[in-house]
Order: sequence, then structure tokens, then C-alpha cells
Amino acid sequence: MMAATVKSEQTRRLLIDSALLLFRTHGYAKTTMRSIAEAADVSVGNAYYYFRSKDELVAELYRFLQDEHRSRALPLLREGHNLGEHLRLILLANLDIMAPYHDFGAHFLRTALPPSSALEPHGRRGSADAGIGRAKSIALFRQAVTASRPQPPLAIRDDLPELLWLVHMGVTLFWIYDRSPGQRRSRRLAHNVAPLAAKLVVLSRLPVVRNIVEDVVRLFQGARRDD
Amino acid sequence: MMAATVKSEQTRRLLIDSALLLFRTHGYAKTTMRSIAEAADVSVGNAYYYFRSKDELVAELYRFLQDEHRSRALPLLREGHNLGEHLRLILLANLDIMAPYHDFGAHFLRTALPPSSALEPHGRRGSADAGIGRAKSIALFRQAVTASRPQPPLAIRDDLPELLWLVHMGVTLFWIYDRSPGQRRSRRLAHNVAPLAAKLVVLSRLPVVRNIVEDVVRLFQGARRDD
Repeated sequence: MMAATVKSEQTRRLLIDSALLLFRTHGYAKTTMRSIAEAADVSVGNAYYYFRSKDELVAELYRFLQDEHRSRALPLLREGHNLGEHLRLILLANLDIMAPYHDFGAHFLRTALPPSSALEPHGRRGSADAGIGRAKSIALFRQAVTASRPQPPLAIRDDLPELLWLVHMGVTLFWIYDRSPGQRRSRRLAHNVAPLAAKLVVLSRLPVVRNIVEDVVRLFQGARRDD
Repeated sequence: MMAATVKSEQTRRLLIDSALLLFRTHGYAKTTMRSIAEAADVSVGNAYYYFRSKDELVAELYRFLQDEHRSRALPLLREGHNLGEHLRLILLANLDIMAPYHDFGAHFLRTALPPSSALEPHGRRGSADAGIGRAKSIALFRQAVTASRPQPPLAIRDDLPELLWLVHMGVTLFWIYDRSPGQRRSRRLAHNVAPLAAKLVVLSRLPVVRNIVEDVVRLFQGARRDD
């Protein structure tokens, strides 16, 4: 059973790696499930057993990149860093992880993004997985909040991980559409948005700023509700 | 010359309409330039004279929708409305205009969006047109600002049209990824973000809020710079 699971996981990875290679050399549109199966030396039927479509393969790659991001970013969190530093490290780690996939990744991550984002909790596919992906990603920001010194104001500490995750999603969307060399504009955005977000957190001690933050939280909660 | 221009414009529209019909019935990926030319009863060579690729056709549709939005929204602006009402009318008019194109439009507007957005002023194609599209769209928000009563605070009045345009782009991106029935979540977002933005404008009289607004303006200016 254990061996079968390992084998199965190897086949999945083999299919993903073959798909990446073909996307890179022939482009996403021209790559077929058949050519992916052939490159991986797997029967077409077996390939379809693992992934019903190219889109599923892309969604799997996106999940893989999310896990990589988590593994890379978690060890960077240190008790005593301030929140701005933590946010910057997390945002830049994400850009580093995604960088090799930008040329064709930007094209197809647009396909992968919706079901894995808060924008589609009741999407047509992958909604359960999407919820897990989002929850995992928010958990990373919760750990950053917990490790940060000084501690963010109590009044917004509960909402903060999700707000930071929204910033992260914003930077990711910007990156997708960013065609500057090496996506340097996305890197600059990550560099600059981190201290600004941290400053807002500090300012949220002021009632007027806290009210704005609460309005923004309500805005996104309302937009996500599906009734 | 005049007749030739009219004819030329008719052929462009015919190609766009044929493309829309085929995207709707066969999907974007399966529609070729050849099939679009055939459906429009135009030679393939002639079709390529107007649009070098499907992507160019899509970019043209996006520009067409932007112009439609402007024509629909401008008469809704009335001196005396407050800024929140104006913003809401503009945002909802945009969602109305784009609604018929969501099923496949969401898929391919992701292709159209980058060169027409601030995110890609130096894009590989359509960069001049993109600048014009953005400038036109910002001009609409400038007229909304000018017509609004009470007048927004002088200190942020110059930056305001572009900030409102960023809100508009945010709602458009949300709509692209929104799979709720009738995109009702995007409509709710537009409804709720408009008064919140107007409230922030009023609060910008307070130095602490004005500083935040200025930080946000600098953030986006920095992200757009390509050096």
C-alpha cells in the first residue's frame, strides 16, 4: 500500500514535470494530454486517471507551488522581526518560487488561480481543495502575525492574517500581469507594500483607521458571501 | 476615402461579431482565425490584414467595451450627486456592459486586460493603445470627480481620478474571477466599495488618512515605473 502510494505520487510528479517541459518548449495551447502522457512514458488512459484535463494538471502545479511557498517561507519567520519584515519575506519568497513559471505560468496560472482563491469558494471545480489551499495560505500569515514583535493591536489581530493574505493575492495578480524584465515591478511592489501594510496595522490603534480597516474587512466578507 | 473608412470599419465589426459568435458556440480555444474569416465571409488574408491574431481581436473587443462603458456612464453623471453615487453608477454600468461576455469573456479578457491596463505600460503589444485606453478611462473618473458635490478635498483631488480607476480595475479583476450566478458578488462589491471609497475621500481631510492615501498613490506609481 505504502509502495503503491509512493509509485502513484511519482507518476503524478512525472506527469507534471513532463507537462512543464512541454509547456515550456511548445507552449500551453499546443500541448495535449496525449503528448504529456507520451513524454512521461505513461499510457494515455493512465494519465487521464491522474488528471482529467490539462486544467487539472495546472491546478495541481499551483497547489504544489503554494506548498513550496509555505515550506520556503516558514523558516524565515523569526520571533522578534516586525510585521513589515515578515510580510516582505513572505511576498518575495512567493515571487521567487513562481519566477521560473512566469513565461507560460502567467498564462495558465490565470486558469489555476480562480478555484484556489477566495473569489471562488463555490467554484465549479476544486472548491474543497481551494478552501484548503486558502486556509493553508492564511495559516502562514497567522504564524507571521504571531511571531511579529511588537504584537499587532488586539482589535485587528484576528482579521489580520486574512487581510495580509489579500495583499499577497493582490501582489500575485499583479505579477501575473507584469511583463517587466524579471518582473521587477512586482518585486518593487512587494518591497513597498510590506512596510505600508505594517504602518497601517500600527495606525489601526487610531479609531478612524480601525474603522476603515473594519469597513474593508466587511467589504471582502460581503463580496465573498454567495447569497 | 470616407466610404473606404466606413467599409473598413464595417469589416472590422463583422470580424469581431463573427468571432464573438464562434467563441460562444465553440469556445475560445477551438476558434481559429480561419473559421472567423469564413464566418464573416472575408478572405483569410483580409482578416489578417485587420487583426494579426485572435488576441488582437480580443484586445479590440475590450477597447470597444471600454468605449461603450464611457458612452453609457457619462450621461449618468450629474452635478450635485455625491462622489459615492457617481462611483457606484460607473462601476455598475461597467458590469452591465461586460455581463453578456462573462461566460467566455472572463476567459479571454484575461488576455485582453494586461496590455490595456496600467500593469503593462511597456507591454509587448498594444502599449500605445493601452495608454490611450487607460487615459480615456481615467478621464471618465475625472469628470465624475468634477461633477460631484460636495467637491472632494483639494489635497487629493488631482490623484483621485486615478485612485478611483484603480478601484474600478480591482472590481473588473474580481468580476473576471467571479463565478457566482449573474456575478452577483461583483455587483455587491461595486455597491459596497463605492460608499467606502467616498467615505475615505471625506476622511482624507484628516492628516493621518491623507498620509495613507499619499502612500498608496506612491506605491502604485512606484509599481508602474519600469526602471
